[in-house]
Amino acid sequence: MKYLIIGGVAGGATTAARLRRLDENCEIVMFERGEYISYANCGLPYYIGGTIEDRDNLFVQTPETFGQRFNLDVRNLSEVTAIHPAEKKVEVKNLRTGEVYTESYDKLVLSPGAEPVKPPLPGIHQEGIFTLRNVPDTDKIKQYIEERKPRHAVVVGAGFIGLEMAENLHQAGLDVTIVEMAEQVMTPLDYSMAALVHQHLKTKHVEFFLNTAVSSFSKSKGRLEVTLNTTRKIETDMVILSIGVRPDSRLAKAAGLELGQTGGIVVNEFLQTSDEHIYAVGDAIEFTNPITQTKMITYLAGPANKQGRILADNLVKGHHRVYKGSVNTAIAKVFDLTVASTGVPGKMLGKLNIPHTDSITHASSHAGYYPGALPMTVKISFSPEDGRLLGAQIVGYDGVDKRIDLFSTAIQHGATVYDLAEIEHAYAPPFASAKDPVNIAGMVAQNILEGVTKMVSWREISADSDGEYYLLDIRTPDEYQLGSMEGAVHIPLDELRDHLDEIPRDKKVVPFCGVGLRAHVACRILSQHGFEEVYNLSGGLKTYETATQ
Amino acid sequence: MKYLIIGGVAGGATTAARLRRLDENCEIVMFERGEYISYANCGLPYYIGGTIEDRDNLFVQTPETFGQRFNLDVRNLSEVTAIHPAEKKVEVKNLRTGEVYTESYDKLVLSPGAEPVKPPLPGIHQEGIFTLRNVPDTDKIKQYIEERKPRHAVVVGAGFIGLEMAENLHQAGLDVTIVEMAEQVMTPLDYSMAALVHQHLKTKHVEFFLNTAVSSFSKSKGRLEVTLNTTRKIETDMVILSIGVRPDSRLAKAAGLELGQTGGIVVNEFLQTSDEHIYAVGDAIEFTNPITQTKMITYLAGPANKQGRILADNLVKGHHRVYKGSVNTAIAKVFDLTVASTGVPGKMLGKLNIPHTDSITHASSHAGYYPGALPMTVKISFSPEDGRLLGAQIVGYDGVDKRIDLFSTAIQHGATVYDLAEIEHAYAPPFASAKDPVNIAGMVAQNILEGVTKMVSWREISADSDGEYYLLDIRTPDEYQLGSMEGAVHIPLDELRDHLDEIPRDKKVVPFCGVGLRAHVACRILSQHGFEEVYNLSGGLKTYETATQ
Ligand SMILES: Cc1cc2nc3c(=O)[nH]c(=O)nc-3n(C[C@H](O)[C@H](O)[C@H](O)COP(=O)(O)OP(=O)(O)OC[C@H]3O[C@@H](n4cnc5c(N)ncnc54)[C@H](O)[C@@H]3O)c2cc1C
Ligand SMILES: Cc1cc2nc3c(=O)[nH]c(=O)nc-3n(C[C@H](O)[C@H](O)[C@H](O)COP(=O)(O)OP(=O)(O)OC[C@H]3O[C@@H](n4cnc5c(N)ncnc54)[C@H](O)[C@@H]3O)c2cc1C
Ligand SMILES: CC(C)(COP(=O)(O)OP(=O)(O)OC[C@H]1O[C@@H](n2cnc3c(N)ncnc32)[C@H](O)[C@@H]1OP(=O)(O)O)[C@@H](O)C(=O)NCCC(=O)NCCS
Ligand SMILES: CC(C)(COP(=O)(O)OP(=O)(O)OC[C@H]1O[C@@H](n2cnc3c(N)ncnc32)[C@H](O)[C@@H]1OP(=O)(O)O)[C@@H](O)C(=O)NCCC(=O)NCCS
Repeated sequence: MKYLIIGGVAGGATTAARLRRLDENCEIVMFERGEYISYANCGLPYYIGGTIEDRDNLFVQTPETFGQRFNLDVRNLSEVTAIHPAEKKVEVKNLRTGEVYTESYDKLVLSPGAEPVKPPLPGIHQEGIFTLRNVPDTDKIKQYIEERKPRHAVVVGAGFIGLEMAENLHQAGLDVTIVEMAEQVMTPLDYSMAALVHQHLKTKHVEFFLNTAVSSFSKSKGRLEVTLNTTRKIETDMVILSIGVRPDSRLAKAAGLELGQTGGIVVNEFLQTSDEHIYAVGDAIEFTNPITQTKMITYLAGPANKQGRILADNLVKGHHRVYKGSVNTAIAKVFDLTVASTGVPGKMLGKLNIPHTDSITHASSHAGYYPGALPMTVKISFSPEDGRLLGAQIVGYDGVDKRIDLFSTAIQHGATVYDLAEIEHAYAPPFASAKDPVNIAGMVAQNILEGVTKMVSWREISADSDGEYYLLDIRTPDEYQLGSMEGAVHIPLDELRDHLDEIPRDKKVVPFCGVGLRAHVACRILSQHGFEEVYNLSGGLKTYETATQ
Repeated sequence: MKYLIIGGVAGGATTAARLRRLDENCEIVMFERGEYISYANCGLPYYIGGTIEDRDNLFVQTPETFGQRFNLDVRNLSEVTAIHPAEKKVEVKNLRTGEVYTESYDKLVLSPGAEPVKPPLPGIHQEGIFTLRNVPDTDKIKQYIEERKPRHAVVVGAGFIGLEMAENLHQAGLDVTIVEMAEQVMTPLDYSMAALVHQHLKTKHVEFFLNTAVSSFSKSKGRLEVTLNTTRKIETDMVILSIGVRPDSRLAKAAGLELGQTGGIVVNEFLQTSDEHIYAVGDAIEFTNPITQTKMITYLAGPANKQGRILADNLVKGHHRVYKGSVNTAIAKVFDLTVASTGVPGKMLGKLNIPHTDSITHASSHAGYYPGALPMTVKISFSPEDGRLLGAQIVGYDGVDKRIDLFSTAIQHGATVYDLAEIEHAYAPPFASAKDPVNIAGMVAQNILEGVTKMVSWREISADSDGEYYLLDIRTPDEYQLGSMEGAVHIPLDELRDHLDEIPRDKKVVPFCGVGLRAHVACRILSQHGFEEVYNLSGGLKTYETATQ
């Protein structure tokens, strides 16, 4: 059996290694257009920022070591320029010599990855404007910083990688301005969660413009000038374009393979393309989102690695291992913050008309009585019918990664919010609380589902121009003194039972506190004393203030 | 409806709070023998060690604040001395006044917790010998340390809490000696995992005696003398007895409630005891282990809290919420180490004759190329029939808590090792690797199940006196130079294919490396070149050396 693999990094190299482990006798040729294979794409921003000091650390394998260990024919600087499915051949260009040759296959594996989107804006090809995808891109950026000593950079696009770059440029000593077309950074988050990131960026003196697009780039007095659609101009020394990526499916398209509506290569559950001898993995494939059943592309290294291994199994032992799809679990460090999401955010569920209920809670990374506990904000979306978890987002500091993995696993297993309430986490004071943030998210959701509690969102409250809601601050006098919501009446929780007469019965009453916990107790007291329309403000004052600031 | 609750801490207070939230009109009386309610038992060792500086931080609620907020009749310093199920009454002793009275109930909730085991050893009532269960115990120990300035302490019993105490006494400036009857610390771990803790204790200069019991205590020249069954004597200034706890089920027993074989109060899935009006939660109940189906007691705060909430729901809304049992997920910080376990350890599965396969892997807390990555050792046990995960143990530093929670959740959901291999964790370099330690554990187990790999344990190798196994060190020459296994032959992995003739075909060949990853590649090469008996050393040289040292 002769396998050709196009692409020598996450998906390609993993497929090759597992193929060899399963079949010592097959022939494997791995083509990589670039000089390097098997490198840590995800580490590139940190090498630019200096956190990863040694460039060699970026390479897991070299063509030689990898070829030797796995008895592979690794051809770097070799671009596959065409696929001829009918003849089961590919055309390859040796980028060292310019030579073009063909190579035949029994089975072909595509893992060509994605390419950065570069919109055709005036001046986009100026020197000092970069995209970041691979090692040469990285070397160029690093060299530019070292040689030109830029003082300021503009990052266009505030996705996960854009923000990692903002942090790392800042870390490298540059002042950074972010320009983002959406109303928020990090689109996989809902607005109220992204707002926490906005707050944090401010404390780090990172300038950012939301709802703003770049209209052109130009040179002015030796510096770059970035013109925004707001007509504002930013003078800068370098630009990182981080607007997004698209699947590198040109070869597949030219070969007549079926592409999907997203532009990705269509594969079945065995990772086979529309041609029976051609398979594909990684950033280039389109797959069904197991939650929404819509088509999507997952631009993540974990899934690419997992797909590579599943694919090798299917190639060697026949189609038996099913790829179930990704739930898009992603995380980024953004300065001191950790930002993570899994599943589908509320706003996307809304767009897709998928019934869902959202709930925001705040919790602590570990027991509050043990030093060093830090806050985190959790937002989950779940089915109002059966409580199935559909998505989760977390913004915090320590321990965010742990909880997002639990949510992700819960989603993967089709778990409900009832299951969340009962997840048995490991508890000792340095690591968690007796009720984990994941449990609390589940408990609150369960209360919503079972009608124990009704919730109102910060959006509904802030849109309430005609005083439909009666806002009741039930915090302590000390807390109230420091400021409250406009028009709120103050009755401390522990005196509530004695002041029920003062609360109107013909309004929607919204007791609120810092995060929603005490308000929950207040809601229960009021509901059971005959108040019919009582709502807890989801996420409490903390979310309201963050989102409306 | 009138509820009486016995016990005012984890299970009792949680039941009370949720009861009130669900039913504003019922009558709730909570009896607590001690002065304090709702305190952080789990924080007590850290207050003794000084990590938690402020004693007030130990209290979540006081009787007054809790009573006020939840409209409860909280009676502290009130011991329930008898239950009369036939009359639905309890007898209460007011410990302030000595007064004894009865109180009637509609429903009674027991959450009396557990009590430390104090074996009847000669001299055990000497001054300076302590157990730790509650705030008064803590105050006594703290005061003793402050006033007597002891230089040395003996901790008897090396369970989770014993080791927490050892660390905290060390932190408070004392030299510590641990005495443990078993061959290892922390019995929920298998020996090879506990051996990592033994190593660590040595680096911290904590003396410990395994396979050793205390036979008596005495006073000598103003100090305590601890005599061991090895006839050795240890002079010390104080002793912490941390031998274990047993359910405080005396009241229940006297009242004729059914106790189980463990001595715990028998409850059904709705947490109802053998008397239909009496319910119980927490450390005092016996429940079925969902993995082994045997009876057990869970001495953990998370389950106690969860049970309390489930119980309140069942009391107010009728029996509808089922308690599914705990998988015993536990964690402890032991100096710089984190030690965690969930499910059932291999040795216990063995004792219960439950078919199981074990696998040890080593992985990194996050991507190795990003600074600060630390190692962790993972051991899992799974069913050889269907791959269902039965137990997991982890010893490491950073990120142990995250992975044990994933394993625990997997066990709770009946997941298999195949599911582990596909858990979609959040990956960015500061938080994980493209393949998470949990994935790797799953992948290796999957290889075992599917016959891709055969494993041999450190125990089998170290018991091999007649040279049944051919040990093949496949590491680099540099690594080999630093020392290898006795009798091992050296052929570096990347030269293996050229030296196949040198390897005997009539022996069990065991290629090994540091952790098992490269040996896996070697095993695959050998198996496919006609070697029939090839075994990977589970956990590699690292586990072998740790366990046999
Ligand atoms: C800066 C950066 C940071 C990232 N951070 C994270 C992160 O934190 N977490 C995460 O999960 N993911 C992250 N990712 C995404 C992750 O790296 C990708 O999802 C993953 O690498 C996809 O694997 P792949 O095999 O599909 O593509 P790649 O790993 O990109 O490999 C594709 C390879 O194919 C080669 N190729 C393409 N066409 C041809 C051809 N015709 N002939 C020969 N060779 C060809 C390309 O040169 C390329 O090297 C990051 C990506 C980048 C760029
Ligand atoms: C030092 C220490 C550290 C711990 N660390 C951890 C940890 O890190 N993680 C973890 O998960 N668990 C830990 N635990 C265990 C955890 O605290 C218990 O599992 C949990 O508190 C059990 O809850 P409970 O309600 O059953 O019992 P408790 O919380 O102990 O409450 C029982 C209460 O009932 C009272 N009582 C008993 N009998 C009567 C009576 N007749 N009349 C009136 N009152 C009565 C007792 O005085 C006691 O206050 C630790 C325990 C200790 C002691
Ligand atoms: C590293 C790379 C070449 C793939 O190699 P790989 O051999 O599949 O991956 P690893 O080195 O992690 O080894 C995993 C294998 O070792 C096995 N293994 C790991 N630890 C083991 C242990 N202790 N005992 C036995 N086997 C072990 C695993 O089961 C797996 O083998 P399998 O697939 O046959 O089951 C490829 O993933 C790569 O190029 N990665 C870098 C690029 C990348 O992913 N970039 C994006 C992220 S930054
Ligand atoms: C604290 C204690 C008194 C119980 O009180 P509790 O009110 O049940 O627990 P919490 O304060 O965590 O509040 C949880 C409640 O608030 C709700 N809640 C939490 N955050 C919320 C939010 N943001 N919005 C709305 N509701 C929220 C939860 O849903 C839950 O209510 P429910 O049970 O009605 O669903 C009891 O657990 C206790 O005494 N603990 C200390 C003792 C102990 O556990 N020791 C062992 C560990 S050291």
